[in-house]
Amino acid sequence: MSDRYIGIDLGGTNIKIGCFDSDLNLIDKTSIPAKVDLGPEAIVENIGMVVEELLAQAGKSLSDVSGVGLGAPGPVDLEKGVIKFAPNLPGFKDVPLKKMVSDRLGRNVVFENDANAACWGEYVKGAGRGAGDMAFFTLGTGIGGGIINGGKLVHGFGDNAGELGHIIIYPDGRLCGCGQRGCVEAYASANSTAKRAEEAINADKGRDSSLKLLLEKNGKLTSRDIYSQAAAGDELAVEIADGTAKALGLVCVNVLHTTEPGRMVFAGGMIAAGDFLLGRIRYFFGEYIWPRKQEAVEICFASLGEDAGIIGAAALAVEAEKAH
Amino acid sequence: MSDRYIGIDLGGTNIKIGCFDSDLNLIDKTSIPAKVDLGPEAIVENIGMVVEELLAQAGKSLSDVSGVGLGAPGPVDLEKGVIKFAPNLPGFKDVPLKKMVSDRLGRNVVFENDANAACWGEYVKGAGRGAGDMAFFTLGTGIGGGIINGGKLVHGFGDNAGELGHIIIYPDGRLCGCGQRGCVEAYASANSTAKRAEEAINADKGRDSSLKLLLEKNGKLTSRDIYSQAAAGDELAVEIADGTAKALGLVCVNVLHTTEPGRMVFAGGMIAAGDFLLGRIRYFFGEYIWPRKQEAVEICFASLGEDAGIIGAAALAVEAEKAH
Repeated sequence: MSDRYIGIDLGGTNIKIGCFDSDLNLIDKTSIPAKVDLGPEAIVENIGMVVEELLAQAGKSLSDVSGVGLGAPGPVDLEKGVIKFAPNLPGFKDVPLKKMVSDRLGRNVVFENDANAACWGEYVKGAGRGAGDMAFFTLGTGIGGGIINGGKLVHGFGDNAGELGHIIIYPDGRLCGCGQRGCVEAYASANSTAKRAEEAINADKGRDSSLKLLLEKNGKLTSRDIYSQAAAGDELAVEIADGTAKALGLVCVNVLHTTEPGRMVFAGGMIAAGDFLLGRIRYFFGEYIWPRKQEAVEICFASLGEDAGIIGAAALAVEAEKAH
Repeated sequence: MSDRYIGIDLGGTNIKIGCFDSDLNLIDKTSIPAKVDLGPEAIVENIGMVVEELLAQAGKSLSDVSGVGLGAPGPVDLEKGVIKFAPNLPGFKDVPLKKMVSDRLGRNVVFENDANAACWGEYVKGAGRGAGDMAFFTLGTGIGGGIINGGKLVHGFGDNAGELGHIIIYPDGRLCGCGQRGCVEAYASANSTAKRAEEAINADKGRDSSLKLLLEKNGKLTSRDIYSQAAAGDELAVEIADGTAKALGLVCVNVLHTTEPGRMVFAGGMIAAGDFLLGRIRYFFGEYIWPRKQEAVEICFASLGEDAGIIGAAALAVEAEKAH
């Protein structure tokens, strides 16, 4: 019986693969090292073997799979199913990944940008459920994003909508990895949060802070350091954490005035900071948004953790199958 | 024969009404003073009489009308067809305008926010034709906006998407009429452009500028003054005009990273400034956007002038009729 769906989340470090039933209940999942340097063919073969293994463990085979969803980093060309290039998949240039995976598995593959797949997962099964219009932000090395409008993912004319990390909030501000200045990512990603703290310490050697001791001890800081020290009351850490929350509150204002999502969902490693982060994002959103919108919008954390990508990818496969 | 469509654009000063065939060819149009102080009932009766008159001039009557589209200022509730309130329609609070106009004309009415109706007009018959994904900005007293994604108007969870004038580009910057600080409207609307020039003159009395003479002569400046003097080479005028273009270039970057429209269309009185405005918006967009997007996006001026609203409203009525 053909009743299994596979969700694949291809990342620069790991590939996550999940096996689901048609109600998106997770049957089994696994994560393997991406081994990006082996090149696309080897990675696709690895994916194939792992999928077969996952199925075999439940007494199933590829013939039991109704559809496959694949989330991949980009920029991608969705229509062609191609990764145009990917900063964290070196060597992936114009790779027709959708066709390669489809050929290997002998199954239809739905291809989506990785952040969009995770966004869709949260929308279908997580914190975005029932929202209809939603914005999604992942706070990690960078800031990824996704937009759902009227119950559908927004793709844009070149499949690059939802690059919410590169909304400029401080013109002529900090240099971002993308080449622009003043992007929200340059202030509020996990990496930028840690980096701003390091810079503040180096710029004012006389200032007392527990972060300074951590930096001296470890040679670098992480966003986790910032939030643990902020929670402990360190003044500099609170200042840096507030810089992050203000940047995120501002980007919520700007996205609200564009597509008016009723729910803004934050995901990624940094949400481990908990209410200290969420409460301050809400505070700054309230400070910057016009009064009549203050209470209408819900700002919350994602609920699916690292599974959002495989759930979203599988959900897209289920829908594609139903639409046939 | 039932083959006429009516487009109505209700503004704070004038009501524009157009009569179209089903291919959206304009048969006849008119504009009447809004007389807002007479209240909603009187305005609806005026609309009814003018529509009947327009039809009669072509030997037609209300029974020849297949559908009516109505663009109204808001915030509106699209589902209920209600103007919740409208800053430039004093006394309009929770007015069920859709039902009132429908009752008066005895015809189905499609109800839309006025900026969205104009956006839709440009998309269907004007500068946005064929774009698929488009952003629309009206540069007038304020800055209105609209977003088209995948060939559809984006409404958002509370029917207030596309408030593009209130995207914050300079946090903690100039106070906007909406209560926020740093909105693009507070820098780049026609009014804000003129106001920034007046403020610059008053802040630096010693500075030489042809705008100073105009301000002394007329007691105030208009955006037209800024652009005429900028075209004549006045340094302050160029500076102010560039402040406007930079703000608009920045908002294009931010909208691009959100819904990724392939075309950004500027409308409203201020586009009379011509290439001096358009060229500089494109310049600043190019300065602030990441390199690989620089040439993919088209920034242009609207082509329908003041008719965009009635054309868009009529187009929505035609579509609603076809969908039945």
